[in-house]
Amino acid sequence: MASYVITGTSKGIGLELVKQLLELPASQVAKIFAITRNNSSEGLNSLISSNSGRVVNVIAEVQKEDSLTKAAKEVESHLGGAGLDVLVNNAGVLPWDDKQMENVSSEVLHEVFDVNVVSVNRVTKAFLPLLEKGKKKQVFNISSTLGSIARVRDWPPSAAHSYRISKAALSMLNQFYAHEKEEQGFTFLLITPGWLKTDLGSSYADLEPAVGVKEVLRIMNEATPEQNGQFLNIHVPGWEEKHPAYYNGKGVPW
Amino acid sequence: MASYVITGTSKGIGLELVKQLLELPASQVAKIFAITRNNSSEGLNSLISSNSGRVVNVIAEVQKEDSLTKAAKEVESHLGGAGLDVLVNNAGVLPWDDKQMENVSSEVLHEVFDVNVVSVNRVTKAFLPLLEKGKKKQVFNISSTLGSIARVRDWPPSAAHSYRISKAALSMLNQFYAHEKEEQGFTFLLITPGWLKTDLGSSYADLEPAVGVKEVLRIMNEATPEQNGQFLNIHVPGWEEKHPAYYNGKGVPW
Repeated sequence: MASYVITGTSKGIGLELVKQLLELPASQVAKIFAITRNNSSEGLNSLISSNSGRVVNVIAEVQKEDSLTKAAKEVESHLGGAGLDVLVNNAGVLPWDDKQMENVSSEVLHEVFDVNVVSVNRVTKAFLPLLEKGKKKQVFNISSTLGSIARVRDWPPSAAHSYRISKAALSMLNQFYAHEKEEQGFTFLLITPGWLKTDLGSSYADLEPAVGVKEVLRIMNEATPEQNGQFLNIHVPGWEEKHPAYYNGKGVPW
Repeated sequence: MASYVITGTSKGIGLELVKQLLELPASQVAKIFAITRNNSSEGLNSLISSNSGRVVNVIAEVQKEDSLTKAAKEVESHLGGAGLDVLVNNAGVLPWDDKQMENVSSEVLHEVFDVNVVSVNRVTKAFLPLLEKGKKKQVFNISSTLGSIARVRDWPPSAAHSYRISKAALSMLNQFYAHEKEEQGFTFLLITPGWLKTDLGSSYADLEPAVGVKEVLRIMNEATPEQNGQFLNIHVPGWEEKHPAYYNGKGVPW
């Protein structure tokens, strides 16, 4: 009977996550609050109309604190006194930067940092009071192995600077929450969903969204407080043969 | 006969670094361009007047790209056709945040990210053309073990969130430069100077500025292209007995 708030659900990973959560029984997934900037996502609207009442589309902007305060009040009104169980910070941006770090503009660095890091803080802050009343107290921050400082040389250096910088910063943010909320029983996890064929990941990506998201959902469902603060990779058999660090289901090095 | 550009030299680590560099012979340290926001640093002015011509105070704001473009032109005019050998990105801020991550404001997160990360990119970009013409091609980015994501639980979680997030991001930025400029012979290093009794470090810190900076200078002087991309700790004998990771002269985990 868990409740979920998920950001960035108009398409890609967020939308697929809503879809796969709905395939679980209502006894397990009672309510999903799908946050989007507007109500124009056909995919989400279709899921809403075919799943009577289990999905609520909450309109909010993750870059605006007051918008999130309103969204949290809306979610609270639906929960009827109960807490929120799970928050998934999924909304994110990935501009394909210039090939050289020095040509990445200050504006892009700030904008990507705002969406991928500062907004995670805004969203988490807004929903913390509800999460504190929840039974699971789980926050899943969607990251990427591109955010691994240790693994930076596993990929060409020529792209996604601002994204990778923001994800390294997100790792530290997750550490703070994991540390500070541990005594209250919270579990904060970083999850990399793999390189998925979404608008963000491009058609060159390794995996279909459904494959990566199935694994994200497995990690979410199996998460324990002992894992608090970890950075977890999905597991897709076969990929380890290409590279031992690919989709190996293990912890991602910082 | 090396030339140096150092940011944040009005006080603290930057000023001490200028002082200790001046104690080396002119055959080794020919010229130091000490960047400050204004010319009101008594410490720096005193070093300038007692070291005829070896130190030039360059007024610039690291948060403003056009100001740095002007500063680079000024440095170029002093170098008389020669390149710049060493850049030290030392300017930084450390606000002592609220005890809880969720109470750190978006404004503070952006401001600290701007000074400690985006400005390092601005400064590096501005001086890259001169560094490319230099003999050493060394860039030292002053970081902190507080920026180690792996070691976040070695300290109380209750302070310096924005600083630590920015330094984790800086590690990724340094990785990009190290990777992208390696073929040109550049060496990009992250150095943690230790917790020093400066205005930034507070009087509670472990070490006198002179002790930490002496070690920073040793790391700078011993730096080799093989170290490109590393995150290095100072070495202060005795401290390893208190904690194996303190001032141990080794690499800092990401």
